[in-house]
Amino acid sequence: MASSLRTVYTHLVDHVKKYKVLQSVNALLEWDELVMMPNNGADSRGQHKTVVASLTHDLQTNPLIEQYLSQLVELHDPKDISSVRVKSCSESAFNEYEISNIILIHKEYQRNTKIPKELVERASELSSRGYHTWVKARKSSNWSEFAGVMQEWIDIRREMSLLINPSKNVCDTLLDEYDPGMTCEEVDHVFSYIKKELVPLIQSIRKRVQEQPEKYGDEALLSKLQSTNEGTFPVDKQAELAKLVAKDIGFNFEGGRLDVSVHPFSTSFSTDDLRITTRYDTKEFVNGLAGVIHETGHSLYEGGLNRSYAYQPVQSALGTTIHESQSLFWERHVGLSLPFWKKWYPVAEEMFPYLKEKNNSIEDVYRAANVVTLNNFIRIESDELTYPMHVILRFEIEKALFDGSLKVEDVPKAWNQKFKEYLGLDVPSDAKGALQDVHWSSGAFFYFPTYLLGAAASAQIASAIPDFEKHIQENNYPHLKKWLNENIHARGSVTLNSNRLLEEATGQKLNPEIFINYLKNKYSKLYDL
Amino acid sequence: MASSLRTVYTHLVDHVKKYKVLQSVNALLEWDELVMMPNNGADSRGQHKTVVASLTHDLQTNPLIEQYLSQLVELHDPKDISSVRVKSCSESAFNEYEISNIILIHKEYQRNTKIPKELVERASELSSRGYHTWVKARKSSNWSEFAGVMQEWIDIRREMSLLINPSKNVCDTLLDEYDPGMTCEEVDHVFSYIKKELVPLIQSIRKRVQEQPEKYGDEALLSKLQSTNEGTFPVDKQAELAKLVAKDIGFNFEGGRLDVSVHPFSTSFSTDDLRITTRYDTKEFVNGLAGVIHETGHSLYEGGLNRSYAYQPVQSALGTTIHESQSLFWERHVGLSLPFWKKWYPVAEEMFPYLKEKNNSIEDVYRAANVVTLNNFIRIESDELTYPMHVILRFEIEKALFDGSLKVEDVPKAWNQKFKEYLGLDVPSDAKGALQDVHWSSGAFFYFPTYLLGAAASAQIASAIPDFEKHIQENNYPHLKKWLNENIHARGSVTLNSNRLLEEATGQKLNPEIFINYLKNKYSKLYDL
Repeated sequence: MASSLRTVYTHLVDHVKKYKVLQSVNALLEWDELVMMPNNGADSRGQHKTVVASLTHDLQTNPLIEQYLSQLVELHDPKDISSVRVKSCSESAFNEYEISNIILIHKEYQRNTKIPKELVERASELSSRGYHTWVKARKSSNWSEFAGVMQEWIDIRREMSLLINPSKNVCDTLLDEYDPGMTCEEVDHVFSYIKKELVPLIQSIRKRVQEQPEKYGDEALLSKLQSTNEGTFPVDKQAELAKLVAKDIGFNFEGGRLDVSVHPFSTSFSTDDLRITTRYDTKEFVNGLAGVIHETGHSLYEGGLNRSYAYQPVQSALGTTIHESQSLFWERHVGLSLPFWKKWYPVAEEMFPYLKEKNNSIEDVYRAANVVTLNNFIRIESDELTYPMHVILRFEIEKALFDGSLKVEDVPKAWNQKFKEYLGLDVPSDAKGALQDVHWSSGAFFYFPTYLLGAAASAQIASAIPDFEKHIQENNYPHLKKWLNENIHARGSVTLNSNRLLEEATGQKLNPEIFINYLKNKYSKLYDL
Repeated sequence: MASSLRTVYTHLVDHVKKYKVLQSVNALLEWDELVMMPNNGADSRGQHKTVVASLTHDLQTNPLIEQYLSQLVELHDPKDISSVRVKSCSESAFNEYEISNIILIHKEYQRNTKIPKELVERASELSSRGYHTWVKARKSSNWSEFAGVMQEWIDIRREMSLLINPSKNVCDTLLDEYDPGMTCEEVDHVFSYIKKELVPLIQSIRKRVQEQPEKYGDEALLSKLQSTNEGTFPVDKQAELAKLVAKDIGFNFEGGRLDVSVHPFSTSFSTDDLRITTRYDTKEFVNGLAGVIHETGHSLYEGGLNRSYAYQPVQSALGTTIHESQSLFWERHVGLSLPFWKKWYPVAEEMFPYLKEKNNSIEDVYRAANVVTLNNFIRIESDELTYPMHVILRFEIEKALFDGSLKVEDVPKAWNQKFKEYLGLDVPSDAKGALQDVHWSSGAFFYFPTYLLGAAASAQIASAIPDFEKHIQENNYPHLKKWLNENIHARGSVTLNSNRLLEEATGQKLNPEIFINYLKNKYSKLYDL
């Protein structure tokens, strides 16, 4: 019996591997498009991606998968498609990775086959139209131009969610796409706590800055590291510094590359072929470097996945919350730390004569790198402390849109009210408010929460590493990387659920108190509260 | 009737496009592998290529193709599979591109379906084993270590050829893979003439060099442009010069890239995404630049193919003879010309202070760029005048191996005899003789002839362009490019046969007299014969 189940499993996995490899080929098509491709190649690249997508879809929806699965799984609750489990008779035949692999393949197959082609095509058309509508609406700073697309997306996403799982609420199904197993109720709980604690902290900092702008104001702090002249921080020197830092953190250039693109990103074609990008501004060097550290964090995750299960769902990263916890771990808990700057700022001074002339103290540098920007409306320009409020505001709006308590046309009003309440600013225009981000134009709802969940998870992971403070003082990156490799990376998607992974690695599920304690402790010192 | 044939044709072409696009995706996988990929990515890249190859093969051998074709084509001679023609009743429904397209799809389908999987796998295994055996044999300079692989390849290629077309001789079937429509008889005719004329010309030059080595010797000439120090010609400056020249010739960097790789090559993912590479030696700059000009020539061909038939067989370049005629047209008839150096040498002098100090005359530079290297054993290091003899020697050996008049173990003996006779040198070792090239290790027989056929074709094309001499004097590259675009590039594979294309473009099929006249005229002047 076990041997024949093994055969079925092998056939199933061999089939799935094919489309996973093809998805990796598609990742190369996209990397090349963003990093290397000449402009005129866009049309033919579209054709490459269309053919690869169509062949991928054929493999993903091949009824063979269902045939194999029917021999391996059963539903716990026949009415709930997500209550799948490996048949008890066959459990003993498989190890935990294989069991999760089967469940993940089942889940993917449901998602890939439940949505009719017509709906997929409508979504694809809306993605393209939505993007162009958003670009125009943002230009004229007019939400009402975009409201129609927004409503169409809400309707389509609701329809899709109910097809995928009629017995689950829409918010949970959408969230689950990005963060497996996470529920809206849990997010509510986590975000309420963060909001309650952070709003007053931000207010105290605002008060401190108003009292002593020359000491705590962002202009004063940032001027320590920035120049007003283009070319002060040459691109080749920044790239050299970034490579030194990435290598030191543990990025292996024999198994990866660092390049330049319009927006920094990371991708991977296997655990041994990792690609990261950043962009360089020649008036300052911190953002380009932070981008590299962030993407290196993502990349170490991809590179640390369990090689025994290459090109299988169980080898995948466990959603965007955990992915973001890895990038933010290195960007914030390492890259923003005082020991980091003690080590690297002298190197930067040697590379950039401008810095040497500034004669900054390490304390100045540390404060500048951790500045809280209180007069900013844009999420991607915000900082460790204000970023969470951007996310919470959006989550609350998305939830209200889906439960019907907010109408699409009222989004800017809700946005601006919340922005005032949480961050103390009057939003001057839709372009700087509800229209600032591209994500809604492609119907990406309940994606934003994972940015903040990931930030909180990164703090929890840091606090769970034994002697973390000591290792940070010593810039002991290999030790940190090893811990993450063993406790997070190698586990891939085997836990099926990010809270289960956090429990396993840190002893508890996501606990926002740890994040808040970390922030309070750090920023009270920085702003002498 | 015509409308239903049109529908069949459309279905056929839509299906074929899919695998052509997938082949283009594979070309990106290979470009990235050679130009960008980190070392450790090799294993996963192998998996990418295997899956893409397997899906390509499934599409290529899908019986749908046969079903569509059966409605469109018939055999002129039922015993000869290559005697295919579009059914007369449907000819009026299609234009010449479409008719050729159908015939080419039929030809591809035969090649893709006639070889049993077992034989394909044997060849694939032998390719890999053959390569490693060749590397070892060349290292120990011992032909006998490689002879077994060579015999296996001859047997496999013969078997494959007879499966593809039992009624055609093996040499013709193999040649046809690289140069559609070319026959061994014609190659014999062309090569005999070239040999008869070239051997005495090379002998006269040798005599002249022996008489006045300080004026005509290769060391004396090459020292004008070369340094003995690494770093004399920095890579970034060479790349800058190469880009200027490529752009001037007509390479559009909005639709292409120039990078560095171990061996120069060109590839394309569409007419609007062309990629070329070269390598730079910091002791001299001419080879790197010549590599760029050569690959630009290939690339202009790919970029000039008829866009209306993208990703269809009729849009493909017409084999390696015509491809090589395009690279050599620019490399030799433009890049080695006196006006070219009059224009570009002053630019090079500005970039490389070493050259400025040399104070070379343009005449010196022109002679150095066109030096005949008489003491060289290696094909890829040979020059315009000695290269043909390398090719002829190999063709004669390959033919003798396939007609049974030469045994594999006697190859080095035959090689060395011919080398002495044609080039006047005693080959010192197998490594510098029969083992020098990698091609035989992958069973690439009758590929070499196309290098020389292409060289001859490039001279014939140059001589057919009205007022070519005038345009060369004026470095009027746009005019030359336009002529090639219209008369060669845009025609793709529509003529099905390279001699037919040459007849169309130049008024006659390949005529070696033109090539010989060009060489005699040029080298008599250079060596004052």
